[in-house]
Amino acid sequence: MTTAADTTTSTTGATNDTAGKVITCLAAVARAPNEPLVLEEIEVDPPQKTEVRIKILYTSICHTDISAWQARVPDAQKAFPRILGHEAVGVVESVGQGVTDVREGDHVIPIFNGECGDCAYCKSATTNLCQHFRVDPFRSVMRSDGACRFRSRADGRPIFHFLNTSTFSQYTVVDSACVVNILRPPHPDDGGVRPPPSTPPSPLHLKMMSLFSCCVSTGVGAVWNVANVQAGSSVAIFGLGALGLAVAQGARVRGASKIIGVDINPEKFIKGKVMGVTDFVNPIESSKSVHERIRELTGGGGVDYSLECVGNQQVLREAFLSTHDGWGRTVLVGIYASTQLLPLHPMELFDGRSITGTIFGGVRGKSQLHDLAHRCLQPDMNMHELITHELPFEKINEALQLLIDGKALRCLLQL
Amino acid sequence: MTTAADTTTSTTGATNDTAGKVITCLAAVARAPNEPLVLEEIEVDPPQKTEVRIKILYTSICHTDISAWQARVPDAQKAFPRILGHEAVGVVESVGQGVTDVREGDHVIPIFNGECGDCAYCKSATTNLCQHFRVDPFRSVMRSDGACRFRSRADGRPIFHFLNTSTFSQYTVVDSACVVNILRPPHPDDGGVRPPPSTPPSPLHLKMMSLFSCCVSTGVGAVWNVANVQAGSSVAIFGLGALGLAVAQGARVRGASKIIGVDINPEKFIKGKVMGVTDFVNPIESSKSVHERIRELTGGGGVDYSLECVGNQQVLREAFLSTHDGWGRTVLVGIYASTQLLPLHPMELFDGRSITGTIFGGVRGKSQLHDLAHRCLQPDMNMHELITHELPFEKINEALQLLIDGKALRCLLQL
Repeated sequence: MTTAADTTTSTTGATNDTAGKVITCLAAVARAPNEPLVLEEIEVDPPQKTEVRIKILYTSICHTDISAWQARVPDAQKAFPRILGHEAVGVVESVGQGVTDVREGDHVIPIFNGECGDCAYCKSATTNLCQHFRVDPFRSVMRSDGACRFRSRADGRPIFHFLNTSTFSQYTVVDSACVVNILRPPHPDDGGVRPPPSTPPSPLHLKMMSLFSCCVSTGVGAVWNVANVQAGSSVAIFGLGALGLAVAQGARVRGASKIIGVDINPEKFIKGKVMGVTDFVNPIESSKSVHERIRELTGGGGVDYSLECVGNQQVLREAFLSTHDGWGRTVLVGIYASTQLLPLHPMELFDGRSITGTIFGGVRGKSQLHDLAHRCLQPDMNMHELITHELPFEKINEALQLLIDGKALRCLLQL
Repeated sequence: MTTAADTTTSTTGATNDTAGKVITCLAAVARAPNEPLVLEEIEVDPPQKTEVRIKILYTSICHTDISAWQARVPDAQKAFPRILGHEAVGVVESVGQGVTDVREGDHVIPIFNGECGDCAYCKSATTNLCQHFRVDPFRSVMRSDGACRFRSRADGRPIFHFLNTSTFSQYTVVDSACVVNILRPPHPDDGGVRPPPSTPPSPLHLKMMSLFSCCVSTGVGAVWNVANVQAGSSVAIFGLGALGLAVAQGARVRGASKIIGVDINPEKFIKGKVMGVTDFVNPIESSKSVHERIRELTGGGGVDYSLECVGNQQVLREAFLSTHDGWGRTVLVGIYASTQLLPLHPMELFDGRSITGTIFGGVRGKSQLHDLAHRCLQPDMNMHELITHELPFEKINEALQLLIDGKALRCLLQL
């Protein structure tokens, strides 16, 4: 539904009471590595030029948040206090000057791997890594002025940002390159004309939108864009967390005929079946190597595709060797915290097996995520199964522990 | 020109004096690792079913021959005495039962990476690795019966084969999957009808044909098929031997605007220019790393493609880092004799740089090599520049040393 107001050009879209003002709200602040997050009052500055302030409705937690919280790398330890979180859904509270493609009231998701649309990378068809807003776990300030938009209410000191997003807060500020209305298709006039508002999402879709910020887009994009799984093919998935299960769903709707799930936790196999996994391999149940067992399950040759969702170098080697020589493709989806190098010999790349890493499933957030999300919200997919827990925001430390203990796939926090 | 005889079906094509008989001829036999090849009389059996006996006219030497001769790997030491050699051109002396796509008198080249046309690999569009006749440096007997077609005239003992080809002999026997008439386009009736003989090649083309057995096809195929170099792009080539220079030619005719040659031997730069190299980097001339210098030469970003033709792991790392993040592609063309693993961290695969190995430039010898060779024989290419020396067959040890010393690109031996 379009009204006259919707088609007028506007540079701010700010018409509410809070627009242009500092907002005081609650955030879960990581004050020091590995210490419980502290729920405290913070001040959130108005969005500057090209920025968007979002009222977060739901956020979920991903293993990348946990890695940043644990901060094992010295560079990561510098960025405290910090507001973590990058999987979320919210509603645009106000926009800064020059923002035209989202507007106040839009239901949006933040994206940690932004798309400015103007750099050499965004203009190249070959990559989804934007020059200015690509994922960078060490960046902790806004790009426009190198400052923070968050301050402690108690001492007035700045609080650092995380992954272009910082969603463990009732309000956050992100660059417009890092926010997308996935319910509304990209509009050709997005560059200049304020587009119509989207239909508000259903309660279920609202919750599921949070997962498109990272896990679902990364997993499904890895299958559809990077591996490019074909109908009738065989796929092995290493690690059946939320990411691996999103991969399984992506492979299922592509028509893969054999989807082998690999996990040391047999409980993961129950949800695995629901998500499309057809065969299971538990590494600790046999003295044979996982790749030998996968080859046996596929008539001796191995799978056409393997996706490594654990982020472990030895698992990576098994994933690589589990693919068919001649054409097997391994996609790395997990994040490798260990400093160990690739446990592969160069000559192993001559047997026709390939290996590729992927960020955000190869998806360009602003221009391509709508189509992927639209497909994933169709009735034949059941991504909502990934939301296993829901808790109020103040129980965020409990939610963190559920993920660390492998008890939750995704725990949705209501802010 | 087709005659009535050409269109009749035949299963042998054998009409000459030697067909069906043992041939006695000279071969350069590797009797022990690293010892000079011995020019001696051998007996060559007639081709069995699906096999072809070839009178070798010219052979050249590739570094893979030297590796097999040095036999540093224990498994390679078992296969002596052995007739090495895999780059050659010859004329079909006779064919065994069932061979229809080449015939007596055809000028052909042997191919070490065969194409049976019937296996699951050959029927897949994704690989040029045949299930039965793919390159295998350890195979040393004929596939059909596990026996050798070569015997020592002195003691009657068998002499082992090499890389499906064994071209350091005046006569050799190869499976028909490993021989191709590159001057004649593949014929739709090749499966059943004896095709017309090809026009005999010119003396220059005859000599150049030898290089299509390995170096030119591997180098040009790596550029055209695997890297898929685009017009206006930038390319870095690590190692300016015959392989690297074939890569340079391939990149030049694809319209690459910057072709950076990397070699520690400044003499290689002279021929490099002739073959299309536009810029040179000598690693030992600066304290800066090669990838830093290549990034400087390309406005900071790095090249679009790098091809590693040396087979050294540290060079591989420089080749990888010299490419542009987001889309850079590294193709491994050299053979890595060292046991060192890939000196890359898994997270380095997440920056949009890819790395791929390739055998025979991704070319299918029987069905695709004709087109590549036809293009490379056009007047705008000067692959004949790769033939820097010519010697009689009896000077094969001298030719080996020229290659080892980096004094020859390709030394053609006339048998």
